[in-house]
Amino acid sequence: MGLQKGKENCITDVDGIKVGHVTLYEEIDDKKTICTGVTAILPHADNPFRKKVYAGSAVINGFGKTAGLVQLEELGLLESPIMLTNTFSVGAVMQGTLQYMLEQTEEIGDTTSTINLVVGECNDGYLNSIRLQAIKPVHAIEAIRSATESPVEEGAIGAGKGMVCFGYKGGIGTASRIVEFDEHHYTVGCLVLSNFGKREHALFANLDQNIHDTLDGSIMMIIATDAPLSDRQLKRLAKRCAVGIGRTGSNIDNGSGDIAIAFSTANKYDHHATEPIESIEFIRDDHPMTNQLFQAVIEATEEAVIRSLAFSETTKGRKGRLVERAPIKNLIHE
Amino acid sequence: MGLQKGKENCITDVDGIKVGHVTLYEEIDDKKTICTGVTAILPHADNPFRKKVYAGSAVINGFGKTAGLVQLEELGLLESPIMLTNTFSVGAVMQGTLQYMLEQTEEIGDTTSTINLVVGECNDGYLNSIRLQAIKPVHAIEAIRSATESPVEEGAIGAGKGMVCFGYKGGIGTASRIVEFDEHHYTVGCLVLSNFGKREHALFANLDQNIHDTLDGSIMMIIATDAPLSDRQLKRLAKRCAVGIGRTGSNIDNGSGDIAIAFSTANKYDHHATEPIESIEFIRDDHPMTNQLFQAVIEATEEAVIRSLAFSETTKGRKGRLVERAPIKNLIHE
Amino acid sequence: MGLQKGKENCITDVDGIKVGHVTLYEEIDDKKTICTGVTAILPHADNPFRKKVYAGSAVINGFGKTAGLVQLEELGLLESPIMLTNTFSVGAVMQGTLQYMLEQTEEIGDTTSTINLVVGECNDGYLNSIRLQAIKPVHAIEAIRSATESPVEEGAIGAGKGMVCFGYKGGIGTASRIVEFDEHHYTVGCLVLSNFGKREHALFANLDQNIHDTLDGSIMMIIATDAPLSDRQLKRLAKRCAVGIGRTGSNIDNGSGDIAIAFSTANKYDHHATEPIESIEFIRDDHPMTNQLFQAVIEATEEAVIRSLAFSETTKGRKGRLVERAPIKNLIHE
Amino acid sequence: MGLQKGKENCITDVDGIKVGHVTLYEEIDDKKTICTGVTAILPHADNPFRKKVYAGSAVINGFGKTAGLVQLEELGLLESPIMLTNTFSVGAVMQGTLQYMLEQTEEIGDTTSTINLVVGECNDGYLNSIRLQAIKPVHAIEAIRSATESPVEEGAIGAGKGMVCFGYKGGIGTASRIVEFDEHHYTVGCLVLSNFGKREHALFANLDQNIHDTLDGSIMMIIATDAPLSDRQLKRLAKRCAVGIGRTGSNIDNGSGDIAIAFSTANKYDHHATEPIESIEFIRDDHPMTNQLFQAVIEATEEAVIRSLAFSETTKGRKGRLVERAPIKNLIHE
Repeated sequence: MGLQKGKENCITDVDGIKVGHVTLYEEIDDKKTICTGVTAILPHADNPFRKKVYAGSAVINGFGKTAGLVQLEELGLLESPIMLTNTFSVGAVMQGTLQYMLEQTEEIGDTTSTINLVVGECNDGYLNSIRLQAIKPVHAIEAIRSATESPVEEGAIGAGKGMVCFGYKGGIGTASRIVEFDEHHYTVGCLVLSNFGKREHALFANLDQNIHDTLDGSIMMIIATDAPLSDRQLKRLAKRCAVGIGRTGSNIDNGSGDIAIAFSTANKYDHHATEPIESIEFIRDDHPMTNQLFQAVIEATEEAVIRSLAFSETTKGRKGRLVERAPIKNLIHE
Repeated sequence: MGLQKGKENCITDVDGIKVGHVTLYEEIDDKKTICTGVTAILPHADNPFRKKVYAGSAVINGFGKTAGLVQLEELGLLESPIMLTNTFSVGAVMQGTLQYMLEQTEEIGDTTSTINLVVGECNDGYLNSIRLQAIKPVHAIEAIRSATESPVEEGAIGAGKGMVCFGYKGGIGTASRIVEFDEHHYTVGCLVLSNFGKREHALFANLDQNIHDTLDGSIMMIIATDAPLSDRQLKRLAKRCAVGIGRTGSNIDNGSGDIAIAFSTANKYDHHATEPIESIEFIRDDHPMTNQLFQAVIEATEEAVIRSLAFSETTKGRKGRLVERAPIKNLIHE
Repeated sequence: MGLQKGKENCITDVDGIKVGHVTLYEEIDDKKTICTGVTAILPHADNPFRKKVYAGSAVINGFGKTAGLVQLEELGLLESPIMLTNTFSVGAVMQGTLQYMLEQTEEIGDTTSTINLVVGECNDGYLNSIRLQAIKPVHAIEAIRSATESPVEEGAIGAGKGMVCFGYKGGIGTASRIVEFDEHHYTVGCLVLSNFGKREHALFANLDQNIHDTLDGSIMMIIATDAPLSDRQLKRLAKRCAVGIGRTGSNIDNGSGDIAIAFSTANKYDHHATEPIESIEFIRDDHPMTNQLFQAVIEATEEAVIRSLAFSETTKGRKGRLVERAPIKNLIHE
Repeated sequence: MGLQKGKENCITDVDGIKVGHVTLYEEIDDKKTICTGVTAILPHADNPFRKKVYAGSAVINGFGKTAGLVQLEELGLLESPIMLTNTFSVGAVMQGTLQYMLEQTEEIGDTTSTINLVVGECNDGYLNSIRLQAIKPVHAIEAIRSATESPVEEGAIGAGKGMVCFGYKGGIGTASRIVEFDEHHYTVGCLVLSNFGKREHALFANLDQNIHDTLDGSIMMIIATDAPLSDRQLKRLAKRCAVGIGRTGSNIDNGSGDIAIAFSTANKYDHHATEPIESIEFIRDDHPMTNQLFQAVIEATEEAVIRSLAFSETTKGRKGRLVERAPIKNLIHE
């Protein structure tokens, strides 16, 4: 009944997408533990400032601190890697990403405009001593440099190192789906940073009582596709992520920053183009593939959340807190 | 695990809310059948223009023609009954509702401002000969006049007469939930006009193949509560309806106008007040009741959809089309 | 310093645009006067449902009742004439426009989807006995049928018959500007229905004290262009109307429904296309023409407001009220 | 005709508001000059996380990188100082502001949630060697620590050090207006960071040809008031800034990030309140004071821009570039 999964069931099934992680873990003392990281999603192999991609976003619940959405919405373009980290490291990751992009692109801030950086976050402060601000700009650069097209490592890794989801260990998860019609064949990939949900609300498994008194959490959802879509259409895709997390059991709680960003690699917008007229191709909204794309987003988001749990491991954090791996291995049928 | 249901599991469990239906059905000839109606939701027993209520809306998918949202969003107020009908009758229902309100309120458009009318719609054109525009202004007036606080009649009635949901007969459904904390006790009610969904996507029952070649459809979702909430908070409630329909199996398809309107009866805004300063009370966003309210919206929306199916009956429409009652009676545990 | 005006300084300078008016005026008795009308703007010569145009809107202040923006925003398309009338006639004008479009397009609501109608309004209740609802559906049909590509009649005509602007007689005004770059030559036209402003705030003339105790009013602003632009870009154009009216002296008052709709005739979206992939051309946002287009919108909006005053005539309305022609003829240098 | 100015015609006329600047200037070599800074606006004398204020924002044109608007919009609250700086220092200023707030508030990120920081920016890269990222976190802390209730220093200072406006030296400007009705007496203050405008478009003075080939620039507009207003109403105030800059000559150009944030000091939201029910007072939207507040925003914004020019001094920047002081001293009538 569901759509076909992509080759690796991974956001990097979309051609050209790369993902990199940097993970920090150190037990400093009885009370303090560094348990956090950075994850970088590169939209394609070229310089994303020079070859921008169309993008849209959806603030499903705005109790979050994601940077960079104002310009992404105005222009419908993504011109940087999408970076994920903890809430207090948005500034450091912006700086590192900026430094990386300035090194790669000598014209930024000199002979041309500045650059819009997109940095998403969740609060890993239950396990991570977030006040220590362990993430430095260099970690963002490392995450970008380490990015590969290989299947993404999932679970308690990168920005997902300290995240908690449905009272169990959450973090990075990814999945993908195929949309086909006649000779058209497109991939939709989703990568989530999961840090939300109350155990008693889980719909994907019969999890018993909630033993952690967690805060509301958050989730970042990144949708990538090679289907040709306009920024308006990509925003429509991003909005469907709400259904994907809703099906896992989220009520989109008050304190959960639930933010989705969708981009397409099909059309590029050349920063240095000299022709005044641009053109793009896109799938018609009224074509059946649009509904399939929506379904693909929903299925991939739901599965990415479950995989973020299934691939995580029991993790010890600050104040001796232990967050266990969810007992759900058998849900992933592969 | 779910929240407690209201006394009648009905939007009219919220004190003061009234609902009225007018249903039209006539087989004109082999090809043409009138199979449509109007449903009116009155926010309270007084004149809604003189005693406005706080409100918010969410355009979950905007392939719809609901009138009145522009001003509702700007001012955060609802000042008319909420009317539901078919897509081509928005104009007629606006006229009838206007006429009713002008009769009740001699100052409108004379010594004070005009009135903002809220009319939602779904396309019942699969069963109903919608091009005939059978709904007249008088039907809107009748629907308002017939409104009562009694439990709402559900299924193929009022605006729901010709609607189709998951390939089965849909229409009007309602449900309610209770939110409690210490001495606080609030009711959240939902009324839907369901006209969406592909049978193969249903999550609430194992429905077999889709035999109807239906268009994408739509759903109107009206949330009422006596919990004290601001317009901003009511908009947050309205947004959670996306999860409610998502859990029934909706992918929020392209052609589905999925629109939610939420209002609270707790604070009134007196049109003719003379004091410059107004005050309202509201539940803090960070209080646990907020998450309970979100959950209540989601549960009530999901159940209202299922009830709209369970209480409908097999209906014959234009071109001899027959839409069957869904085989799901046993899902309603009452 | 300003941009060059179009051939006729009129919205119909944009090739294919047609405008039609129907005006109603009748002194019924000492207290009641019908002083209102309908104005229709046709985006091009073909059926607008079958050949849709890209469009965007801006709710500059939402104290207004314009219908049809929800879907226009979701899909970025306009598929009907844009109709203007008084606040209480939105329903009647929707019905008439629907009837016209159904006659022209047998597939609507039968073998294909329904149609999204766009009807804007201002409150002419100071002069017009708006409670009488004198506008009937047939007047909308007449306004559409009478539309021509000739220069638009301005002032107290059509929907503008009963409007009041800065305490003087307002109504319909139009203006246009040319944007040029190398071989590119585009026209931007604006048509306004002006019904806003306090005399003491006027910036375009030294008007003395405000003798009318008018309500806040409203303004509808329709922007048409043949420049190739996407729906996102057209929304950006629509937003710039705020500056245009701001320069005339508007403070965008609380009770003023200030709504702008922009569309482009350059790309058409064929309702019955069978290919899944669509493409459009558009001017790059970072090309200097974009700023020229913004300037054109601002200049044309500002001038259209002034012309709506300059071409109006002193008008007598209900309760013996007289609204005078503004003493500003010399401001129009033509 | 305009409203009365506040005591010092300054945003700090609103009781409790403090403003602090840190300015960096160093000629490194022939090509490189550090010419930038940070400006901090403190909403009141207490800890803004513990005593939040209601706030709203308007993205008038989103070609900008302001951080913190997502949560401000969702919750309608401001819980940090508002920081202004150059585009490439948003990350550093976030870090410094975070460090300051963590020192002041031990519960953040430990026993309670994280904090939402608001950092606005303009691109001072014409004069400032922005790629050097001279601003460090400590500069943000210094700007906050140096904040006072005294009249604000204006012109080429703080974040305004390197800004260019209408081709002349821009930067920080401020103004205020009084709104009165019966015994009600409120102040509206505006502080701008001006970095926009083409000389040929200036409406406030007859400036001759544009000699600088500047990029489009940006403007940050901060509105503060002691009038009791809800977050929805504060958003309405923020939107009126578009008219204020429009009257100076802005066409809200493509590359200009024009962003307004408005907050009120009248109601506080206590982070650690234990009662579930909150209440606020606010001026009714339909009371004449609302229109006066809109007018106050527009007038103060327009004058703040002009003052940012009038109080700036000719400044030398990178690559030997010189930006002159605008010849407009006589426009400030004080």
